[in-house]
Amino acid sequence: MVVRDDHARVLVLAGGSGTRLWPLSTDARPKPFLPLASDHTLLEDTFARARRVVEAEHVYFSARDTHAPLLRKTLPAVPEENLILEPERRNTAPAIGLSAAVIGAHDPGAVLAVLPSDQAVKDEEAFTAGLRFAVEAALAEEAFVTLGILPTRPETGYGYLETAEGEGGPVRKVVRFVEKPTREKAEEFLSSGCFLWNAGIFVFRVSVLFAEMERQCPDILHAVQEAARERRKGNMEGFRSAFALARKISIDYAVMENARAVKTVPCSCGWSDLGSWDAVWEYRAGSGASNVLRGQAEIGGGERSLVFASGRPVKVLGLDDVIVVDSEDGVLVTRRDASDLLRESVEADMKRRAG
Amino acid sequence: MVVRDDHARVLVLAGGSGTRLWPLSTDARPKPFLPLASDHTLLEDTFARARRVVEAEHVYFSARDTHAPLLRKTLPAVPEENLILEPERRNTAPAIGLSAAVIGAHDPGAVLAVLPSDQAVKDEEAFTAGLRFAVEAALAEEAFVTLGILPTRPETGYGYLETAEGEGGPVRKVVRFVEKPTREKAEEFLSSGCFLWNAGIFVFRVSVLFAEMERQCPDILHAVQEAARERRKGNMEGFRSAFALARKISIDYAVMENARAVKTVPCSCGWSDLGSWDAVWEYRAGSGASNVLRGQAEIGGGERSLVFASGRPVKVLGLDDVIVVDSEDGVLVTRRDASDLLRESVEADMKRRAG
Repeated sequence: MVVRDDHARVLVLAGGSGTRLWPLSTDARPKPFLPLASDHTLLEDTFARARRVVEAEHVYFSARDTHAPLLRKTLPAVPEENLILEPERRNTAPAIGLSAAVIGAHDPGAVLAVLPSDQAVKDEEAFTAGLRFAVEAALAEEAFVTLGILPTRPETGYGYLETAEGEGGPVRKVVRFVEKPTREKAEEFLSSGCFLWNAGIFVFRVSVLFAEMERQCPDILHAVQEAARERRKGNMEGFRSAFALARKISIDYAVMENARAVKTVPCSCGWSDLGSWDAVWEYRAGSGASNVLRGQAEIGGGERSLVFASGRPVKVLGLDDVIVVDSEDGVLVTRRDASDLLRESVEADMKRRAG
Repeated sequence: MVVRDDHARVLVLAGGSGTRLWPLSTDARPKPFLPLASDHTLLEDTFARARRVVEAEHVYFSARDTHAPLLRKTLPAVPEENLILEPERRNTAPAIGLSAAVIGAHDPGAVLAVLPSDQAVKDEEAFTAGLRFAVEAALAEEAFVTLGILPTRPETGYGYLETAEGEGGPVRKVVRFVEKPTREKAEEFLSSGCFLWNAGIFVFRVSVLFAEMERQCPDILHAVQEAARERRKGNMEGFRSAFALARKISIDYAVMENARAVKTVPCSCGWSDLGSWDAVWEYRAGSGASNVLRGQAEIGGGERSLVFASGRPVKVLGLDDVIVVDSEDGVLVTRRDASDLLRESVEADMKRRAG
């Protein structure tokens, strides 16, 4: 049962690149287009998630124009007017601002729920309940309402939302955004009960976003509003040059961290950002902490490993805690906890190609 | 400078299969046709080795007829009459017996030096000196003269030649062939100084071989002599049916272990049977015990590993002591010391395909 309000919209962020999931993720096929959490792509999983909260016709997609063919192929049922394509990658503040301007022009009362599509959720029921609640809260209040993931471990790879002490209700006030903490801090956060993971999922009235942008980053607001106007007129040249004036900055830095009213709905839904191969293994292996296999993959005499084959047989013998991924673009073999080495290696390749 | 005797011949054994070097070695491309020890195939390396002892025209090849196209392509300079092709695989006693019968028909005084082509040699000078010495000894005496590799470690994967105590000369009498020993035995062998590795390299007059076959396995001798006669007549049907009667048995079991006179020339030449990926790593890494790379292979934060790429980039990150081999037929990722797991896995595949 979807939210009973004609103003509710979901905006799926279908962009992003990713050096951390080489050799599957590439510039031509970024993470949302990979089947990492299920046998469907993350984008399809996210679309299904969105349709549990609003009608399909109210799900919009923010994506790079170069990925439009892949997006149309992946989700053929989505109408063309629901694709909000960027002529270049300028980070999330311009992308979300443009989408809000496009959608807000049709419906100034619209409420947007932003859903990144490079994440996974195990307990869809709990997620849906949390997101519906956040949408209802954003319809009722002049605030950004984020989904705050209840932490299950002292994670140092995520940002956190700090809530006021003593608040225990289903909608809590966010007093501070906290960057990725040290291990010590992360353990404090976990035991305090006041900290939630920032999943980048949040809901707002477009009027609330515009007011905060006017206050905090009017340059970006004016650029994306001008771009949306040119787009409506069908002037794609004007659209491109207006959008090019929007500063490259994330929505967290540009708006959220200093917004006057930010609330959060705590949610415990088996969420993962799938931010590394180790995270993909952990998400797929679950509490059994077993081996994860795809395709003609074989593990002999080994535990706690992920092996993705593609086309050819892959044998992994006598090794524990490894990631092995075979694709047309290359073969990765790594210790599960060595994601930093992968990032360094892929970045070195990119520099070599550029230089 | 080659051996100055018109009767000296080298017989290169170009057969064999190999589950232990999957995914590079397959039935269609057995181990001699792989570039494991250098940038050339083992077969080319062996041909070069043979030509240091005899003229090129005196180098013969024993191979499966199905591998003839690959053999001709690998060694285009070898004349057709030097290829002795078997219609089916029947182990080394029939193969060597047939070759001796074919060569002996032209030159009953011929001396054959048998060289397997699935091995590697680091010190070619020392090997050449040892093999020339063995050829001279076989020309002078009515005996099989093997090359005995001086052991450098208590290896449990090889057979041994036991020599009489107190013998220290360059040609020693072999008193016994010993099967693969236990670790304890292998350590005794190493310290005793009386034991040499049996590399399957040996030299004999064809008349000596025929006399021992007549005594020990006349059935095989008569089958291969009949096969050689039909072959000379050009009757390939008769050739095939005669050869099919030769019992499947190795030359060691059928002849060498109970031969009346076996001698050995001790040789220290950095020999390896390349019998597993670990052995290939050890041979290529040498005393530095470093990483061994081929193609677009990269090792980050790891030691003592072998990575063979083919076509696509292969990244191996944060792992020590692993073997990673990428080929068109599959991808292998294994701990260096897990060759038993590979053999089991490939044999299970073969059973599955057969059943």
